[in-house]
Amino acid sequence: MNKVQVIESVLKANDAVARANRHRLHQQGILSLNIMSAPGSGKTSLLEQTISHLPHDCRSAVLVGDLQTSRDAERLSRLISQVTQINTGSGCHLSAAMVADGLDSLDLTQVDILFIENVGNMVCPAAHDLGEDARVVLLSLPEGDDKVAKYPTLFQPADVILLNKMDLLEILGFDCGSVRADLSKINTRAPLIPISCRSGVGLDEWLRWLTNRINTSSVE
Amino acid sequence: MNKVQVIESVLKANDAVARANRHRLHQQGILSLNIMSAPGSGKTSLLEQTISHLPHDCRSAVLVGDLQTSRDAERLSRLISQVTQINTGSGCHLSAAMVADGLDSLDLTQVDILFIENVGNMVCPAAHDLGEDARVVLLSLPEGDDKVAKYPTLFQPADVILLNKMDLLEILGFDCGSVRADLSKINTRAPLIPISCRSGVGLDEWLRWLTNRINTSSVE
Repeated sequence: MNKVQVIESVLKANDAVARANRHRLHQQGILSLNIMSAPGSGKTSLLEQTISHLPHDCRSAVLVGDLQTSRDAERLSRLISQVTQINTGSGCHLSAAMVADGLDSLDLTQVDILFIENVGNMVCPAAHDLGEDARVVLLSLPEGDDKVAKYPTLFQPADVILLNKMDLLEILGFDCGSVRADLSKINTRAPLIPISCRSGVGLDEWLRWLTNRINTSSVE
Repeated sequence: MNKVQVIESVLKANDAVARANRHRLHQQGILSLNIMSAPGSGKTSLLEQTISHLPHDCRSAVLVGDLQTSRDAERLSRLISQVTQINTGSGCHLSAAMVADGLDSLDLTQVDILFIENVGNMVCPAAHDLGEDARVVLLSLPEGDDKVAKYPTLFQPADVILLNKMDLLEILGFDCGSVRADLSKINTRAPLIPISCRSGVGLDEWLRWLTNRINTSSVE
């Protein structure tokens, strides 16, 4: 096999495991979200805020991807018990097989919503289906207002896009209009929700989107 | 060949092209730097500041990697004529072969220093030698002070590390001591230079490092 054939074969194998993950999660009635962004956009902070504000009868679990360290899992373990860190070594993204192993480590009968925090990377995670129901993409203001145009493979398939660190808007001179204009060319389906995990602005709108999604999936 | 064999074979082929690039650049007396970081850390802003402040007899050229768009190349073209944008499509890093093609597009007889701005990604670029003399790694404060521990494959082989967006230090509560402590475990060789491309702080120290490197390489 040449390089292209191997990549195609790896992606095909990944898709098969992703389908099995999706089936397994649906059988348990679990909504799953794949959360992707550049390093430091605020994925873990978003999860801290989200888990703290979800209704008590909505039980969360988290799979956290990182090359090394268990720092994010430790942060989230302060809030909920079902957290598993997946270390990828030098791997640049989570794969469906890693998520399948992660699912084995959780008690899925006690989960309503599964958050999968991907490795911080705007390129490779986007090419790998993990079996999720929806893709949540974060873009933080300090990264610059040109990122939607530069990383279309991440933003095009997103189901919701969170524009984080809005508390820095005035200091940074970020152009939200430019982001909306770039998005209008590749993804008119996903809502763009400006938030700040620090000030709390916009989190109510994000939680409304999430609750609506939970209710829709439990009706299906 | 299985997946691991293909990856090893691809990296081996990349290394051979990287060696050829290095030889070609040295024959022309050109110092080359591979600049890597997460998306939005300020690589293009650093190049704008650096090119503007280099002595006039030090002629720069830039190869700029991005998935799509030529926005960074357009920004840099306002300062110098020898700028080539390399679009990787969905590729997550520059390869030595892409750099070899990029070199063909430049008049190397008119270049003293070549900056290679890699794709914004903290994982994959680190695994690929491009033929550079030195690796410059940027970390910007908004990304968080845990990134050295989380992405050791990027920071371990760095020759100089620039801590950018220092103008946001007070607002963000970033712990520089924590970064230094994590670095002391994996890389005690590279200087850590705090800078701000916005306020200009620290750029003199970076330019001193760069000028010293240029002088050292021309003596060799």
